[in-house]
Amino acid sequence: MKIALVGIGKIAVDQHVPSLAASDDWELAATVSRAGTVDGVPSYKDLDTMLAENADVEVVSLCLPPVPRYDYAKACLEAGRHVMLEKPPGATLAEVYDLQALAADKGLTLFATWHSRMAKGVQAAKAALAGKTIETAHIDWKENVRQWHPGQDWVFEPGGMGVFDPGINALSILTEVLPAPVFLREAVVYTPENRQTPIKANLTFSGGVTAEFDWLKEGTQMWEMTFRTTDGDTVHLLEGGNECVVNDQQMPVAELGEYPALYARMAELVKAGESDVDLAPMVHVSDAMTLGRRVTAPAFEW
Amino acid sequence: MKIALVGIGKIAVDQHVPSLAASDDWELAATVSRAGTVDGVPSYKDLDTMLAENADVEVVSLCLPPVPRYDYAKACLEAGRHVMLEKPPGATLAEVYDLQALAADKGLTLFATWHSRMAKGVQAAKAALAGKTIETAHIDWKENVRQWHPGQDWVFEPGGMGVFDPGINALSILTEVLPAPVFLREAVVYTPENRQTPIKANLTFSGGVTAEFDWLKEGTQMWEMTFRTTDGDTVHLLEGGNECVVNDQQMPVAELGEYPALYARMAELVKAGESDVDLAPMVHVSDAMTLGRRVTAPAFEW
Repeated sequence: MKIALVGIGKIAVDQHVPSLAASDDWELAATVSRAGTVDGVPSYKDLDTMLAENADVEVVSLCLPPVPRYDYAKACLEAGRHVMLEKPPGATLAEVYDLQALAADKGLTLFATWHSRMAKGVQAAKAALAGKTIETAHIDWKENVRQWHPGQDWVFEPGGMGVFDPGINALSILTEVLPAPVFLREAVVYTPENRQTPIKANLTFSGGVTAEFDWLKEGTQMWEMTFRTTDGDTVHLLEGGNECVVNDQQMPVAELGEYPALYARMAELVKAGESDVDLAPMVHVSDAMTLGRRVTAPAFEW
Repeated sequence: MKIALVGIGKIAVDQHVPSLAASDDWELAATVSRAGTVDGVPSYKDLDTMLAENADVEVVSLCLPPVPRYDYAKACLEAGRHVMLEKPPGATLAEVYDLQALAADKGLTLFATWHSRMAKGVQAAKAALAGKTIETAHIDWKENVRQWHPGQDWVFEPGGMGVFDPGINALSILTEVLPAPVFLREAVVYTPENRQTPIKANLTFSGGVTAEFDWLKEGTQMWEMTFRTTDGDTVHLLEGGNECVVNDQQMPVAELGEYPALYARMAELVKAGESDVDLAPMVHVSDAMTLGRRVTAPAFEW
């Protein structure tokens, strides 16, 4: 199937382009971006022109920041193309409901991706927790924003989500592996005095689940979660969900990496004529932004 | 049907108690509250005791602030009682989804009420806008928090919602009368430097819809919205939705007031074995708290 990629920035170059190149399902037929291009692929600056000149592009994958994404997604759906959305699927919940309704109305596939859900150890953790009761669970998602988003000011602008940009990856895994849903009880969110979105957050959920998100972690980066069940089992997810250890035993994990797995899933969805839009991770972030106690943190500069 | 009222504060005394007294459907059989009581009605300080001693109370209506409400609602549902929730239905979206699942599982009615949707002119406005296209719509929801919530510090604590506590009433009307859904494009929220929740907010939605919420309005209080359609019609909702004027003509309105209408609806839902949980107004507030640009406002004291 021919696919177009919109928004040729860091995540597109690092993940989307190589995943498409390695897949038999897909042919990258066009790109749309203000600046970025991909060698050997026709590039456009304007979405409407790309759509008009490439009637055979069935699928458009959007790797833009969340705020501008809605208008692009809507234009693609209205032009009869299936759409794949980078996480988070939008800047607001209501706009994603709107896209969902539009896709259903047009009989098109909408896939709101959560790449961390495809991390290699996630299904092993889910299987280990199935049918169990969680006694406690803790997430540490601590990374250095200067290393992973150098100079990307949009992450600190309204709608950029701040530390919830990585944190929502942890929440996408949490909502996939937990045997029963939880909800936020309390949160503290720390926002630099010169920025709009949080740089650190501590979350307390129902069911004994807690999370610490920190975007100022230097040295070893930390994307881990630990679940203890009432049966006495301990399940660790390490390396952003890519390793799973159950009661000190390393579990076998999936072969396909996160983005190749997302594109394989998109191919399945299109063939089956289905959509996949689960907003649970985004609901938890919205809840944290609504219920969270706000604390002013020191100014942040790159 | 026998009903119990939990949380005997201002809204219970002003609205719930008289509405129940005036209705043939309901008998107020018990109250639960730390401080308030209702003359001639058995009062409890503890929910579990009330539930244990009143097996014939089929319905519990919760008028507590949003943060403690979940635990009460859950206990009532687990005790096999139908539940009616004051607005907003919870402190988070995820906790309301949880209650919804529990009610469905138990075969009980859950009614997330929006009293302003029952304002007398709302259905007239909805009828006037049905099948039309909105060109622009504007909401002015401007009241004096010192007059309506004197000393109620919880409204400025996390989860108290601040100016969105009245604002969500406007949004509950908006989402009822609009012929097609909208979503938030941009927001500015103003929070007093010594408080946690906004005291003022300006919202810009898709579809030409804008809103101004202000909690510092002195003098004449203002709960109004104006819709202009592409056909050239103008629909005004005045007095919090209780008056409807279409093209300068006053429309006939409903007879029943907001709370009597809510209790009549609850009686219908219980008889029909149905629930009514529409979270659209709360989604817009969560979206505003997530996407809104934050501005610090002067300190607020009562």
